[in-house]
Amino acid sequence: MNTPQTTEVANIVADIQPLIQSKNFVAIVDAVAPLTPEQVASLLERLSVNHLAIVYRLLPKEKALEVFERLTPKMQSDLIDGLQDSEVSAIFADLDPDDRVWLLDELPAALAPRLLHGLSAKDRELTSGVLGYPKGSVGRRMSPEYVSTHPGHTVAQALERVNHHLADAETVYTLPVLDGSRRVVGVVSLRDLMRSESHLKISELMHQAKTTSAYQSAEEAARRSTNLGLLALPIVDKEGRLVGILTIDDAVRILEHEETEDSARQGGVEPLGRPYFATPIRALVKSRIVWLFVLAIGATLTVQVQSHFEATLEQVTLLALFVPLLIGTGGNTGNQAATTVTRALALGDVQPRDLFKVLLRELGVGFSLGATLGALGGLLTALLYEPRIGIVIGLTLVAVCSLAATVGGVMPMIARALRVDPAVFSNPFISTFVDATGLIVYFLIARAVLQI
Amino acid sequence: MNTPQTTEVANIVADIQPLIQSKNFVAIVDAVAPLTPEQVASLLERLSVNHLAIVYRLLPKEKALEVFERLTPKMQSDLIDGLQDSEVSAIFADLDPDDRVWLLDELPAALAPRLLHGLSAKDRELTSGVLGYPKGSVGRRMSPEYVSTHPGHTVAQALERVNHHLADAETVYTLPVLDGSRRVVGVVSLRDLMRSESHLKISELMHQAKTTSAYQSAEEAARRSTNLGLLALPIVDKEGRLVGILTIDDAVRILEHEETEDSARQGGVEPLGRPYFATPIRALVKSRIVWLFVLAIGATLTVQVQSHFEATLEQVTLLALFVPLLIGTGGNTGNQAATTVTRALALGDVQPRDLFKVLLRELGVGFSLGATLGALGGLLTALLYEPRIGIVIGLTLVAVCSLAATVGGVMPMIARALRVDPAVFSNPFISTFVDATGLIVYFLIARAVLQI
Repeated sequence: MNTPQTTEVANIVADIQPLIQSKNFVAIVDAVAPLTPEQVASLLERLSVNHLAIVYRLLPKEKALEVFERLTPKMQSDLIDGLQDSEVSAIFADLDPDDRVWLLDELPAALAPRLLHGLSAKDRELTSGVLGYPKGSVGRRMSPEYVSTHPGHTVAQALERVNHHLADAETVYTLPVLDGSRRVVGVVSLRDLMRSESHLKISELMHQAKTTSAYQSAEEAARRSTNLGLLALPIVDKEGRLVGILTIDDAVRILEHEETEDSARQGGVEPLGRPYFATPIRALVKSRIVWLFVLAIGATLTVQVQSHFEATLEQVTLLALFVPLLIGTGGNTGNQAATTVTRALALGDVQPRDLFKVLLRELGVGFSLGATLGALGGLLTALLYEPRIGIVIGLTLVAVCSLAATVGGVMPMIARALRVDPAVFSNPFISTFVDATGLIVYFLIARAVLQI
Repeated sequence: MNTPQTTEVANIVADIQPLIQSKNFVAIVDAVAPLTPEQVASLLERLSVNHLAIVYRLLPKEKALEVFERLTPKMQSDLIDGLQDSEVSAIFADLDPDDRVWLLDELPAALAPRLLHGLSAKDRELTSGVLGYPKGSVGRRMSPEYVSTHPGHTVAQALERVNHHLADAETVYTLPVLDGSRRVVGVVSLRDLMRSESHLKISELMHQAKTTSAYQSAEEAARRSTNLGLLALPIVDKEGRLVGILTIDDAVRILEHEETEDSARQGGVEPLGRPYFATPIRALVKSRIVWLFVLAIGATLTVQVQSHFEATLEQVTLLALFVPLLIGTGGNTGNQAATTVTRALALGDVQPRDLFKVLLRELGVGFSLGATLGALGGLLTALLYEPRIGIVIGLTLVAVCSLAATVGGVMPMIARALRVDPAVFSNPFISTFVDATGLIVYFLIARAVLQI
């Protein structure tokens, strides 16, 4: 490999400045790749705080750690300042998700908490974009203000650390236990510490730690934390090293937000993002008009279906009377299935791999519902109107309910598999879909039975 | 007043036994009312543990406290045993809500935690029926395993109490501060205690306590606790005396359960009460069939409306083509409004007293949506079909959207005012309601415009 001489570092500095200006990150990565950690360190020394942060952030993880250990304390602190700078963090936060994946390796676990340390919750959210964890991940929501301890510490030493951090830690009630390389090997509660003899080793009283990867979605991490009833969930990087904690009140806030969004989407409304009365009427209209419009366009399908069968309708006007009842029942059945499956997905009761199982179950449920309603509805129609119309109604209810429950159950699963919020296949969406297909089924059955 | 002599207590015992057998609680209240606390105490001494508990529980609160103080420690413990007995607690838990209100005064705050103390969560839920707090109230869900302190205690004394309860308390991280009569006068965290000099008085470092009445619904109390991010919310009786705490993990569990229920009801499904795959298909069908059936019966209204206008339909078959589109759009608009308002009610952003404000807002939103869609839909229909049909469609969309948004917004408010879960006015329910009324509006407008 063609390793540049230290004297050449000055030339690279000159080359790199315009690349930073033009945000040509790929070229920077290429230019820095052949340098040894020592050379990178001496390169960084010649850059301004912001440029230093940008170049450093583009290093692969292992190299980043080696370089960091070679920086002077002053440079280390400059680097943290640079990474915290709002312009720098905005650059990395706004990176295209695909670019992010291959440009931004994880920051070393030793740096992540330092980077977020001492920031307000708002600044933390901004700065967390630098960490390399994707949008919506728990890595963007975690707190660095924890107190950790080591397996070899005594209870007295751990309590001393707690006392030391009483003022600044987010919580002092749960302590992750870290080995020499920051890997989480257990967890110990303040209560455990207070209950134990002060000379005992932490390794003797710690519990197994339940941790979560910083790459996991904030919603899933929050659900895990509240399901386990943990006051603080340790968040780890790819190698199991501690990078932050998720406290239970943050977890609750994340879930409340997600549930408000889910509920809105299921009703076919864009989430408002603020309280109802604080939302101007214009914004309420805006949160609904797009979906309403999309659904109305979808609903023009029903006009087309009926246009297609207009001859049938003119021959037997009676058929028109039952259209709202049939498509309404189909819509309701679809909504029921979608509601149940969407919630089960949110709670983790159903996984994307269960697609086929869900399909079969919902087909069974839909058929049972359809058979019950169809028998009853068909009989009543036969008595009140005409026997043959009764057969049409009965058969249509069986078909429409089976179809609707299956579609309603499967749509949220497909959304989840495509990594889209299952709630976007909202109840109105499913109703509209079922309306059009239900009408086709209805008229086909009518034509066959009535032989028109 | 005709006060019986102590010698007569023996007679009352004889009278009371059959009243207990026949559960004639009103007569027991009347028989015991004239007795002094001393006489009640001596009456109780002659009863079996279970009977003693039943008679005691029927005393008014003030008297109950006076009697309790006159009982020997052995009798006090018998009384607690009796109140914890599953037969006794079942009697009071199953009481008709109206009877409960006037028969069961609150238990004195000194007794409530003692009653629940040491029970498992399951037994606690059972026994809490004895407390006099209504079903679904936080009084039924609170925990008695707290550590409290007094304003006059020193930090060292409070820490000693914490140390004493490390093994049994539900949480030791938040301590309610009580005055001499158990009123909550503040709250102090373990972290505050650890940060303070040990000779300081609790009154110097305690914070103002946010408390909640035991009568408040568990959902509202849980929402308050998570909104405030409290690890433990003190629960108080009518006089502000501490009867228990709600810990944040219990609060989270309550909210998760409520949200699952709300989500199910909004989709027109009875809540399953267990994970999706743990629910047999039969139970899934059962959770949906009743609502589907009710809605289908509601939907027969649409058949009747269309029967009524059959002549109009036969004259202009074209009108039938637009029925699914129009009622679908109405249903969607109604669902959007209902979803937004139901969630705002659950979060406490909207209060029942805002009914009229919500009505006006939703009317405004619905009109705006209808005007936009109506202008567009009317124009397209006029171009593609017939100008006069275009006018009908346009006007109907304005009317139906205004109606649907208003109904969708107001229904959950009315439900809440009637103390019914707002989510029972589910999206399918609102769709069905709007379907029928929307059809009437459509045909009336069509008749007027087309002059048929």
